[in-house]
Amino acid sequence: MTRVLDLATIPGDGIGVEVVAEALAVLTAAVGSDVEVTTTEYPFGAEHFLATGHILDDGDLASLTQHEAILFGAVGGDPRDARLAGGIIERGLLLKLRFAFDHYVNLRPTKLYPSVTSPLANPGEVDFVIVREGTEGPYVGNGGVIRQGTPHEISTEVSINTAHGVERVVKHAFELAEKRGKKVTLVHKTNVLTHAGSTWSRLVAEEAANHPDVVWDYLHVDAATIFLVTDPARFDVIVTDNLFGDILTDLAGAISGGIGLAASGNVNPEGAFPSMFEPVHGSAPDIAGQQKADPTAAILSAALLLDHVGLPEAAARVTAAVSADLAERGSATRTTSEVGAAIAQRVAAAAPTH
Amino acid sequence: MTRVLDLATIPGDGIGVEVVAEALAVLTAAVGSDVEVTTTEYPFGAEHFLATGHILDDGDLASLTQHEAILFGAVGGDPRDARLAGGIIERGLLLKLRFAFDHYVNLRPTKLYPSVTSPLANPGEVDFVIVREGTEGPYVGNGGVIRQGTPHEISTEVSINTAHGVERVVKHAFELAEKRGKKVTLVHKTNVLTHAGSTWSRLVAEEAANHPDVVWDYLHVDAATIFLVTDPARFDVIVTDNLFGDILTDLAGAISGGIGLAASGNVNPEGAFPSMFEPVHGSAPDIAGQQKADPTAAILSAALLLDHVGLPEAAARVTAAVSADLAERGSATRTTSEVGAAIAQRVAAAAPTH
Ligand SMILES: CC(C)[C@H](C(=O)O)[C@@H](O)C(=O)O
Ligand SMILES: CC(C)[C@H](C(=O)O)[C@@H](O)C(=O)O
Repeated sequence: MTRVLDLATIPGDGIGVEVVAEALAVLTAAVGSDVEVTTTEYPFGAEHFLATGHILDDGDLASLTQHEAILFGAVGGDPRDARLAGGIIERGLLLKLRFAFDHYVNLRPTKLYPSVTSPLANPGEVDFVIVREGTEGPYVGNGGVIRQGTPHEISTEVSINTAHGVERVVKHAFELAEKRGKKVTLVHKTNVLTHAGSTWSRLVAEEAANHPDVVWDYLHVDAATIFLVTDPARFDVIVTDNLFGDILTDLAGAISGGIGLAASGNVNPEGAFPSMFEPVHGSAPDIAGQQKADPTAAILSAALLLDHVGLPEAAARVTAAVSADLAERGSATRTTSEVGAAIAQRVAAAAPTH
Repeated sequence: MTRVLDLATIPGDGIGVEVVAEALAVLTAAVGSDVEVTTTEYPFGAEHFLATGHILDDGDLASLTQHEAILFGAVGGDPRDARLAGGIIERGLLLKLRFAFDHYVNLRPTKLYPSVTSPLANPGEVDFVIVREGTEGPYVGNGGVIRQGTPHEISTEVSINTAHGVERVVKHAFELAEKRGKKVTLVHKTNVLTHAGSTWSRLVAEEAANHPDVVWDYLHVDAATIFLVTDPARFDVIVTDNLFGDILTDLAGAISGGIGLAASGNVNPEGAFPSMFEPVHGSAPDIAGQQKADPTAAILSAALLLDHVGLPEAAARVTAAVSADLAERGSATRTTSEVGAAIAQRVAAAAPTH
């Protein structure tokens, strides 16, 4: 019986639409005749919201849970459009999906492929994974504003950290390190954020005791940014909270050749909900629809998806094809579909056809 | 009548002691015979705490307020020493001073001097100032832990942002931009931290209206880290909250040649309390007492101090001497005092002697 891979796609806005199309073509080529890929496209995003007033409701979530995984592009419209102010789409769609589907592992591998240019003069070996907590911390939306618009305005943001939430992501990070370089770095700001810091420190130390062959260390988030630009080779697996992870993964993307290459997974490891895979970059309204976007980050996100759904060989075909394509990229500019087609062709040549 | 400059010094721990000695010698040389410098050394720091149990009390604060300004080294002991856990010295001493003396402008100039090596392959022109809020945000210590040590532990951190606190630092940033490149960049995470984000956004937009000749823009903190490594020349004045400022200034220090060169001021612009000047780097226990530390960051902090107390010509002599010294630094290693003496000598040659 053919294996069926039933995916939801949320191309979203701007370049999201263009890159998801390429990622899907590559993914389909990679699984070859062994797997039948079916897809259902969902129209969510800023444009959809502006046209219909609809962002994402419980019915949508129920539909999405029917699928095995979600391939996500990027969402967000014109940043100056007042109707989109306050991150209404980011929070109402992207973060809502992460929270509703308990995507507690926000997985962001960082790798500087040979022949890719880093802004660093001597990057050395860059090959690490940031395991960013995805469902709590400063992202919970807790807080408020009083006396708004007056000289006495006070606004608060409450970061919520639970043993439940921290322990499981830390465990995942150590398990990942077991399969990689056997090193975990906790990044936090324990000398200032002492309450949350104590929870993270304690749970990392406790989990570390279960992994005597994994070494671990700790860096303040400010110091971590220094090491990312002076000695990125020191990192194997970084585990950190939602906000620090947001910041560090953009920096990590930049030093490894730009966020045009940075892939990510919003993962629920238990499979209670579909996991969601997306490039780290945004919708880039300024270049949307012009075939200028690099689809590589979306394609590498599709590889993470394949790995997650138990098709590691197909995933490996995609990363190998990307690696080969990157190695041959010259200075010639190619369109989004040209890059996608080139990678799909390499992948197809290696995929099973029986 | 001779102008008297009455300073408090808090050399602190580790290399703090070594670099403050050099900074003080350079400062004294820079003012020449025009100004009589008197200094009172305070012993505060981790070592003092371990020896006496004393960190900083109201009496100490009262003594410190007698002085015109404070020259601060670095504090912190062995990070593995359990008696210093939870940032007890950082919070009880450094942050307590910033909060008690209302140092709401945490001023961190970033400049890549010619002939200094950046980890970036093509840094371009790096010359901007980060104006970090210093008295509120996630640094207030608000929050707590319940059910500690159990699987039901919950810890919170509350960021508190007031119109009073944000408005004044934003005003300072725009006034600074007027004297520089006439550009302000607000860095925040307004699409996620919407409560605090709305306060910052509103007050920046309002202050911007008073400065029609200053252009301003906004970057999410994650995107700001990308620009710091791909296009630092885009920045003139960055204004941001306490935590984002902590992170960005370490990264800024790294790209401009390392935090061995990064100076900072904890400034109360109204002069209600003494301002405090300190290198961004820490006490570096691993190299303490070995004359290995670069005193340049402390010396540049002394220049910020001179500027603040109304001695801009002496300040200019210090930065010119540092610039000349940096230009002539070869690969030969010099001791902390050798660097200090070389800069002091240049400064003395330029200082008034009548
Ligand atoms: C769009 C935004 C809400 C999101 C985040 O902050 O998590 C993005 O920056 C990311 O890193 O995926
Ligand atoms: C030591 C620490 C509390 C301090 C801070 O976080 O502000 C330091 O990192 C700094 O940037 O001055």
